[in-house]
Amino acid sequence: MKIDQVLHMNEGMGEASYARNSLLQQKAISIAKPMIEEAITTLYCNTLPRNLAIADLGCSSGPNTFFVVTQIIKFVETLSQQLNRPSPEYQVLLNDLPANDFNSIFKSIPTFKHELYNEIQANKIGHCFISGVPGSFYGRLFPTRSLHFVHSSYSLHWLSQVPEGIEKNNKGNIYITRTSPKKVLKAYYEQFERDISWFLRSRAEELVEGGCMVLTILGRRSEDPSSKESAVHIYELFANALNHLVFKGLIQADQLHSFNIPNYIPSSSELKLQILKQGSFKINRTEVSSVHWTHCGSDNEHKSGAYNVAKCMRAVLEPLVLQHFGEAIIDEAFRVFQELLADTMSKEKTEFFNITLYLTKQSRSYVCFN
Amino acid sequence: MKIDQVLHMNEGMGEASYARNSLLQQKAISIAKPMIEEAITTLYCNTLPRNLAIADLGCSSGPNTFFVVTQIIKFVETLSQQLNRPSPEYQVLLNDLPANDFNSIFKSIPTFKHELYNEIQANKIGHCFISGVPGSFYGRLFPTRSLHFVHSSYSLHWLSQVPEGIEKNNKGNIYITRTSPKKVLKAYYEQFERDISWFLRSRAEELVEGGCMVLTILGRRSEDPSSKESAVHIYELFANALNHLVFKGLIQADQLHSFNIPNYIPSSSELKLQILKQGSFKINRTEVSSVHWTHCGSDNEHKSGAYNVAKCMRAVLEPLVLQHFGEAIIDEAFRVFQELLADTMSKEKTEFFNITLYLTKQSRSYVCFN
Repeated sequence: MKIDQVLHMNEGMGEASYARNSLLQQKAISIAKPMIEEAITTLYCNTLPRNLAIADLGCSSGPNTFFVVTQIIKFVETLSQQLNRPSPEYQVLLNDLPANDFNSIFKSIPTFKHELYNEIQANKIGHCFISGVPGSFYGRLFPTRSLHFVHSSYSLHWLSQVPEGIEKNNKGNIYITRTSPKKVLKAYYEQFERDISWFLRSRAEELVEGGCMVLTILGRRSEDPSSKESAVHIYELFANALNHLVFKGLIQADQLHSFNIPNYIPSSSELKLQILKQGSFKINRTEVSSVHWTHCGSDNEHKSGAYNVAKCMRAVLEPLVLQHFGEAIIDEAFRVFQELLADTMSKEKTEFFNITLYLTKQSRSYVCFN
Repeated sequence: MKIDQVLHMNEGMGEASYARNSLLQQKAISIAKPMIEEAITTLYCNTLPRNLAIADLGCSSGPNTFFVVTQIIKFVETLSQQLNRPSPEYQVLLNDLPANDFNSIFKSIPTFKHELYNEIQANKIGHCFISGVPGSFYGRLFPTRSLHFVHSSYSLHWLSQVPEGIEKNNKGNIYITRTSPKKVLKAYYEQFERDISWFLRSRAEELVEGGCMVLTILGRRSEDPSSKESAVHIYELFANALNHLVFKGLIQADQLHSFNIPNYIPSSSELKLQILKQGSFKINRTEVSSVHWTHCGSDNEHKSGAYNVAKCMRAVLEPLVLQHFGEAIIDEAFRVFQELLADTMSKEKTEFFNITLYLTKQSRSYVCFN
């Protein structure tokens, strides 16, 4: 399939990276920070670019949009000073699906620049050029060999589409669970394989020699994809809430059977296997870290943990639920969900797992596949 | 002044390029077409780029946004076939002020690509990467030596700000007229000089060697800046409408005195003088063409000429008028304006003048001014 054809496959899943605007995201970036700094140091010292092109894939729109970019620019400025080099020009490429609110990002640029220039001596910093690049990262987004550094956080667990052929086979479930038949697991895994392969091939074409990526992905610790942990567990609880609505006659059983979430929550070894198979990237470092579910909330909220998790997941899932079940059942679905979350969180250790990867493009791997 | 500091000077003049979505704009592009084709042919044959970066400055949002880009890509595809070269990658950089509706542009990308691929054999065309670049073109927008071709239509007559010091000196007028004192003319001209100089210096830094621009600017034919012609005449009629509202007590005289339009409608020789003075560009071709005022309307409108002109000018001026005078007087102001337009158009030959320029970056002129 020509890559352009997959470009807008996952439009409509517009809240893919909503979770970025929570403590979860800030936590993920603080975990990724040492890897980002290692990557940028190696990249900068090896290539000394006059124009440093940084892409943030799944940038979302909100208070965290410029968070990682600010960190990177501040770090490069420190490096430049240490090396007694002029500050490079920065090209910041913000990507998300076309449904993302780019207008609001663009209006916040003056604030971002103001804060950045306040932190760095404004006279010394190079130009900072910001652009919005709409489209799916499961296809080409940027010209060949035009990027130096790619960052993505909490976006790559979103598949380009719900895997085909699972509709009739995953009854009562909305993701992989222990009761899902093997063909459902297989369909999900194959979709993940295809998507991640497109992602890696596309980025390998777009990165310069020596270019690198730091990716944070919502993952799982167990090798069993139906293991009751991380976001897999959350989706199971949401499926329970929807089943409760079927029981109460508020939604049809068939409606639930045909609803599946276009995510794949991989293990670290599944990810590494795909990267090795695809062959364009060297894995420099991998880290699995845990974050408590309550980090879904924002700093200012003093509500219960379950409230925060339900609110965050509502923001993530609402567009899908709305499209599939209509507006009438939304409040009730998330009310029941919050109850189930509260019950679970009072009894169990409830954590997400983040997988953070630092990859460098292998120089021998550049293959043009137009 | 550091260029970044002028970046958002003219935010809030968000409808700067609204006129692009009228027959006027299509007409302007059809006049510019031979120059665009000449420029692209020379550029393409001299540089044979694998990645062709095209910037459209003041792209607006609406049915005409992709019009010129489509023309350019189709033309390059024809050229590639004639020269038996592979189709290049296209990098389309759409610029306008941050208040522009980029979300709506991004949502229309699938339609644009669908239509483009229908017209060209889709299998053969290179990738087409589209991004939105918010900011004022009176400063740097793109990395150094990253552009091949710059297009801009009906945008460069907008100044970055109302010239300073004219507020108390241009009573009853909203632009240069025959009754404006000399210092008003001087202030307008100096602002035009400063802005056009920033524009040319910025583009000279951003264009590759051999890179070129085709610019269409709303201009005048006479060397007298207060000559009653082109848009100068239209602004005089709108000032008359506002004076009528002062007479009726609907707006205060002081309010009108402090209202001035941040435009400069230059003559062809004024423009050429600035280009020569700045020194980065060679002028290959200049053309002055006239378009009747009624071309402000769109094809489907069968209303009177005055109605179409008033409607178009309302779209262009409303944000400024609203901000300055408030909402209450808008309808009456444009009603009176339409009457004045109808009267004028029944008696006189009412035309706009377009100045179209084809410029190439002079190789000796590259000066870094960080």
